[in-house]
Amino acid sequence: MLADVSDQFLNIVAEPLVRAALAEDLGRGGDVTTEAIVPAAARASAIVAARHAGVVAGGSIALLAFRILDPSMRCTIDVADGERISAGGTIATIEGSARVILSGERVALNVLGHLCGIATATRSMVDAVAPSRVRVADTRKTTPGLRALEKYAVRCGGGINHRFGLDDAVLIKDNHLALAGSIREAVAAVRARVGHMMKVEVEVDSLDQLREALETPVDAVLLDNMSPETLTRAVDLVKGRVLTEASGGVTLENIASIARSGVDIISTGWLTRSAPALDVGLDVDIAP
Amino acid sequence: MLADVSDQFLNIVAEPLVRAALAEDLGRGGDVTTEAIVPAAARASAIVAARHAGVVAGGSIALLAFRILDPSMRCTIDVADGERISAGGTIATIEGSARVILSGERVALNVLGHLCGIATATRSMVDAVAPSRVRVADTRKTTPGLRALEKYAVRCGGGINHRFGLDDAVLIKDNHLALAGSIREAVAAVRARVGHMMKVEVEVDSLDQLREALETPVDAVLLDNMSPETLTRAVDLVKGRVLTEASGGVTLENIASIARSGVDIISTGWLTRSAPALDVGLDVDIAP
Amino acid sequence: MLADVSDQFLNIVAEPLVRAALAEDLGRGGDVTTEAIVPAAARASAIVAARHAGVVAGGSIALLAFRILDPSMRCTIDVADGERISAGGTIATIEGSARVILSGERVALNVLGHLCGIATATRSMVDAVAPSRVRVADTRKTTPGLRALEKYAVRCGGGINHRFGLDDAVLIKDNHLALAGSIREAVAAVRARVGHMMKVEVEVDSLDQLREALETPVDAVLLDNMSPETLTRAVDLVKGRVLTEASGGVTLENIASIARSGVDIISTGWLTRSAPALDVGLDVDIAP
Amino acid sequence: MLADVSDQFLNIVAEPLVRAALAEDLGRGGDVTTEAIVPAAARASAIVAARHAGVVAGGSIALLAFRILDPSMRCTIDVADGERISAGGTIATIEGSARVILSGERVALNVLGHLCGIATATRSMVDAVAPSRVRVADTRKTTPGLRALEKYAVRCGGGINHRFGLDDAVLIKDNHLALAGSIREAVAAVRARVGHMMKVEVEVDSLDQLREALETPVDAVLLDNMSPETLTRAVDLVKGRVLTEASGGVTLENIASIARSGVDIISTGWLTRSAPALDVGLDVDIAP
Amino acid sequence: MLADVSDQFLNIVAEPLVRAALAEDLGRGGDVTTEAIVPAAARASAIVAARHAGVVAGGSIALLAFRILDPSMRCTIDVADGERISAGGTIATIEGSARVILSGERVALNVLGHLCGIATATRSMVDAVAPSRVRVADTRKTTPGLRALEKYAVRCGGGINHRFGLDDAVLIKDNHLALAGSIREAVAAVRARVGHMMKVEVEVDSLDQLREALETPVDAVLLDNMSPETLTRAVDLVKGRVLTEASGGVTLENIASIARSGVDIISTGWLTRSAPALDVGLDVDIAP
Amino acid sequence: MLADVSDQFLNIVAEPLVRAALAEDLGRGGDVTTEAIVPAAARASAIVAARHAGVVAGGSIALLAFRILDPSMRCTIDVADGERISAGGTIATIEGSARVILSGERVALNVLGHLCGIATATRSMVDAVAPSRVRVADTRKTTPGLRALEKYAVRCGGGINHRFGLDDAVLIKDNHLALAGSIREAVAAVRARVGHMMKVEVEVDSLDQLREALETPVDAVLLDNMSPETLTRAVDLVKGRVLTEASGGVTLENIASIARSGVDIISTGWLTRSAPALDVGLDVDIAP
Repeated sequence: MLADVSDQFLNIVAEPLVRAALAEDLGRGGDVTTEAIVPAAARASAIVAARHAGVVAGGSIALLAFRILDPSMRCTIDVADGERISAGGTIATIEGSARVILSGERVALNVLGHLCGIATATRSMVDAVAPSRVRVADTRKTTPGLRALEKYAVRCGGGINHRFGLDDAVLIKDNHLALAGSIREAVAAVRARVGHMMKVEVEVDSLDQLREALETPVDAVLLDNMSPETLTRAVDLVKGRVLTEASGGVTLENIASIARSGVDIISTGWLTRSAPALDVGLDVDIAP
Repeated sequence: MLADVSDQFLNIVAEPLVRAALAEDLGRGGDVTTEAIVPAAARASAIVAARHAGVVAGGSIALLAFRILDPSMRCTIDVADGERISAGGTIATIEGSARVILSGERVALNVLGHLCGIATATRSMVDAVAPSRVRVADTRKTTPGLRALEKYAVRCGGGINHRFGLDDAVLIKDNHLALAGSIREAVAAVRARVGHMMKVEVEVDSLDQLREALETPVDAVLLDNMSPETLTRAVDLVKGRVLTEASGGVTLENIASIARSGVDIISTGWLTRSAPALDVGLDVDIAP
Repeated sequence: MLADVSDQFLNIVAEPLVRAALAEDLGRGGDVTTEAIVPAAARASAIVAARHAGVVAGGSIALLAFRILDPSMRCTIDVADGERISAGGTIATIEGSARVILSGERVALNVLGHLCGIATATRSMVDAVAPSRVRVADTRKTTPGLRALEKYAVRCGGGINHRFGLDDAVLIKDNHLALAGSIREAVAAVRARVGHMMKVEVEVDSLDQLREALETPVDAVLLDNMSPETLTRAVDLVKGRVLTEASGGVTLENIASIARSGVDIISTGWLTRSAPALDVGLDVDIAP
Repeated sequence: MLADVSDQFLNIVAEPLVRAALAEDLGRGGDVTTEAIVPAAARASAIVAARHAGVVAGGSIALLAFRILDPSMRCTIDVADGERISAGGTIATIEGSARVILSGERVALNVLGHLCGIATATRSMVDAVAPSRVRVADTRKTTPGLRALEKYAVRCGGGINHRFGLDDAVLIKDNHLALAGSIREAVAAVRARVGHMMKVEVEVDSLDQLREALETPVDAVLLDNMSPETLTRAVDLVKGRVLTEASGGVTLENIASIARSGVDIISTGWLTRSAPALDVGLDVDIAP
Repeated sequence: MLADVSDQFLNIVAEPLVRAALAEDLGRGGDVTTEAIVPAAARASAIVAARHAGVVAGGSIALLAFRILDPSMRCTIDVADGERISAGGTIATIEGSARVILSGERVALNVLGHLCGIATATRSMVDAVAPSRVRVADTRKTTPGLRALEKYAVRCGGGINHRFGLDDAVLIKDNHLALAGSIREAVAAVRARVGHMMKVEVEVDSLDQLREALETPVDAVLLDNMSPETLTRAVDLVKGRVLTEASGGVTLENIASIARSGVDIISTGWLTRSAPALDVGLDVDIAP
Repeated sequence: MLADVSDQFLNIVAEPLVRAALAEDLGRGGDVTTEAIVPAAARASAIVAARHAGVVAGGSIALLAFRILDPSMRCTIDVADGERISAGGTIATIEGSARVILSGERVALNVLGHLCGIATATRSMVDAVAPSRVRVADTRKTTPGLRALEKYAVRCGGGINHRFGLDDAVLIKDNHLALAGSIREAVAAVRARVGHMMKVEVEVDSLDQLREALETPVDAVLLDNMSPETLTRAVDLVKGRVLTEASGGVTLENIASIARSGVDIISTGWLTRSAPALDVGLDVDIAP
């Protein structure tokens, strides 16, 4: 599955984040070491390579680090976002100012390693549930400031995106219910407020609650922390009338058994919160 | 070890990041679910608790999420940054608008879980090298935009901070050397440029290189990817004249054996790049 | 219908916009006239009143103009957002520094007049289709930078919000179809990419296209520029399987006849693009 | 009358506003629909056309929407700012990435329609007072955040700009006078503070007040809410010693009769606050 | 002469600049020294004092440094902006967190010293031309980013402000004339474009040019680099019909002789570009 | 000594400051005069020249003013940063749009004059202490918002940079000591907190304090306000074990005598706080 980062996303959503990361790294004084040692005219080429196998995500986003520092840098993507890469494989090549390569390296690798790590983790879960038709979804448990990029990386790994924030879909949780009195009242309140293009999901933690939810106009139910057995019964109960999403305590070990319950979606914060970065490095070839 | 987040750091460095995270989550439409279901006047209290044992970091930073939404929220820290917490332990308590608690929850937990994860990982490495006098340091392998907070979390875990960016210390790496010709020339170039308050470190990957470095006015040597045996010989060679830092391939399993080489510092990107988030949750108690 | 602007929305979404409007008005030199004439210690009270009848929206948002200039200003809302007001009616009262009242006046009124204008226009259309169950929706035809506030004003007027941007719902338009080949292919491409919480709507401009759309898994159809008669036949065709939205050429004069076709939603950019501002004014009462 | 948007204005003043509008529309997830359906390599051309007759304003500003998304887009202006266009007339043509055309369309049209609406409204008033020498001016009743662009549009329509904010000219209003005691004292206070390049205007609502104002060193008088008859007497009284500006209750119907009073300037917030957007559209021609 | 910094100016114009200065100083790591040594609970008071005599400007602006770090700091102004202070005199007193006093000190003093330096320089020139009625004006030769504050400081020193930027008044310079052909054409072009509240000044460097200018509708003439004798003749020529401004090569030594020519205004960039900072210091009194 | 401004520093650190200065100057309305008089198509060339002799700093940074307004401007540096220039010498040449040259002129000159002034002042002090090996350093007494640029200018003048902020080096001052009890305790507290790449300096104002400091692990001592004689004794006492920095009351007159004491560094805020701007001008050559 090839993901596709559009110019729009790159220029408007990703660019300010990479620019801020460069500003964070260059601080008030710039790259002291490189400026002192490397002549402004020195040229170099470099290869961005994976040190371990994984799934690529954010290649073009990472390369922005070099292109922002110097728009004349020539950058090539060798492995597209969404593709698998083996240990040692080349993800991208860069050519141009040696200074820019050295000064942009860390930011580029921090972005790339982080996003590839998420895509790789997602892919491992997606593979674990194949060939079932269940889809693996992320959550709002993302790193502050990086949600847009992280959710893109989840798609690169074959996952799907749950809502992007509190404003683009309704998810009624236990605490909302405690304040609303009942699922019926909560759903009614929400339906009176939202437009026709917004989906409504309600979190239930028992089959009784599920039955109550099914009597209301919801689009999906989040089956929270249920055992595979209970999930199976829940799916039976729902009979395809609404989407079923399992969540809570999902691991690489148990995801296949959760998938066998027949739920439509399994969501987990692990994809974006605890996936280790993929080890990526940059090998410089100094022009003579 | 109690870490100490000053008001200065909180208001100037951390606040804009938490505010941006809230804006990211609330998007263009705000918290649709909560606004529809929870009355503006509803009050609640909540407990932020650890689901697993770990080390706390960023308690006050996370609580900013609620205080930015509503300055009248009453927040109390129960476990200070830098302290250990056991599974189920309460980190902080919040009281005030029910809406604000529900809308700020995810951002607060995302910040807290991320920083506690780093502190916990750091503490595990620091403990692994005790009772040696070696210190565990972070690197510039941080999450884009969050370096200041992540480096704070490393200190909460008992670690120390390597340089904050390319501008506050000199680190001459292999690629710089390839362009400078020799360590001597590189160090000379750097010394001619930097002020007296900036330290200079050079990365070496062999004992020969180390000997060359020791003939130059450097403050520290980064011993890159050396075996414990080579590290021991390197420490012997240095004889305390400069600080010795081991880096490369550091894991929780091998850090103790690296420490036994006698190096002063062990640095690793793992602390900030691959530490899983600590599982933290928020339990709401709705006021009747 | 009372709309409800939460503290979250006010502080995170609306505040930066009002602050920017104040900066735009105060420029580089501040309020020269007021600073020269009005003593810093002078106190005053003021009434914000409607010069014409309408529907209130953005009262609390407008008052931010005074509270940002001076947090000690005492502001009271007399007519809540979403309520009707008659000509001459008082919307809010302010008390505090005379200087702040004079310097904040224009920004407050610009915000309020703009949002009340949208709410009033929306209400007129909503009333025009009563007592049918059709809902009136906005579009993305909003003033650059003010979409969040304008969509809030639409809700104050009894309307509902269509999607907030290009990222929170799918709307397949004629140009997309020209590039996709067919509705079937377009919907398939979109379904493969989006998560389970995102709705998919397709724009059709003939009954043939509508039939084609109904064979695909869409949530809604946008019936573009159809006559009331064609709309009626379209609604018959759909038989409630998906939501039906009429759009194109909607005016206060023809909206009732469009509503009689039985569509679920009527959307129009007029609400946010061409509604005249409601005339609101501020009457100062100088403290003796 | 051709208006002239300089590169300086375009790049420094207008660009950040258009960029913000794109960010507002693309949100956190980008243009989901277009990315899923339109291949990155697809090319297209498009025509921006007026659906109704009017006066063009902001052509180059609107095209920024495409050029920010992709600097390689080829954009041509067919009708310059300030020129009249008939219904169906082409304002601009665009050529390049099909994705960019589809994703930038709404922002470009929102900007253009808004500014053309203001220019068209202004032109209608300017024409209504021709061939008198009276000039039509805007006010500070502008849309929050868009004052610079809206005042530019007023110039495109043949109008002139009143002050841009509270800091670039003095306007003493009734509330200032209530606090200053007298026009004499108010003008004296202001003259003591402001530099020699700042003009001073005072608002009067009676001929008595006008006489009082004429005894002070003001540059202009704002004749507030006076009947055409009173305005005529006011102009007689002034005898050309200061500029005379009529304001309050100006409509397209009564502006000619106001102009006949002989005032120098007629100002009205209607130009920027209540002018309906000009209906503009974008017709795409997909490259085969 | 007491200057008067309004809350509006303080909160909207000055606050972001002081906040940025704090962020610049605290960097990514905060005040390392103070955090390590000074307990969070330590209290202190401090006095901001002048080390040399001068004129105060920016007292409230400088104190923002402490109030932004901690809104509970108690700050008192002892000498108001615009007043003279002798060496050793106390400008303000601060009480509260010892940490905040130490961390905010440098930013507060940098702001205060800079603005007092400008006010003091201005006052020295204003005094040098007394008791003539000539006024001393600043220019656009200001420090990038600080124009609003610097122009405020000029007023504190008894000077007046020339235009704030390229957009709030017209100044036709020699290069404009070279492109326009003649003063007549240049003034005509400008008059056709600008509103009635904008003044027009033309720069002339000979009496012939001055005569040409006087035949056009300008509000002021800038007499550039003329000797006192030529200035006297110029003033005679003008006969009070327009304002006369002398500029170029103005020093503390020659300003009195320039003033004797009878010009209305003398403007000089020296006030804002080359005035040395006033030496101000902060003396801390640690609470026991 | 040629300083070297890298593309990284230029694009990430300097560009936002120059862009902000342009926005400050163009305000809401743009360059009214130039737009009215100079045709968009007019071309011109210009020379940036020094009116007085000095040292160049910030040539490329100043030229950003033109390149930001119009990326097609052709700019050439004639005298590199760090080089001396005589009165009348050409620093840079610009070619392109006449409008852009006129509109960007003031910002470019403000940046250049300010930075050249600092470099010139620094060079005068550096020359005054030659041929001793003492180095001249700046302080944190910089203009709010411009520290990065000003510290660069100091390097252009042959000086070195002290710390960039509160976070990149430790400087224990008298007030810290008052709160810590003793130098020993203060240094211990700081050493426990900071990483191995951060230097620690302590300020002492007597030889007794110096002796105390020398018993602690500090990297440098700041000898505050000592007479040349005391400095000489201090240097004897230190015996090269730590770096010695003299500060306080440094002037161009006394710096040579301070240097003769044998200290390693002399630091003074005068470089950045009170150096007069170098007089630079722009001579336009209008294309026929």
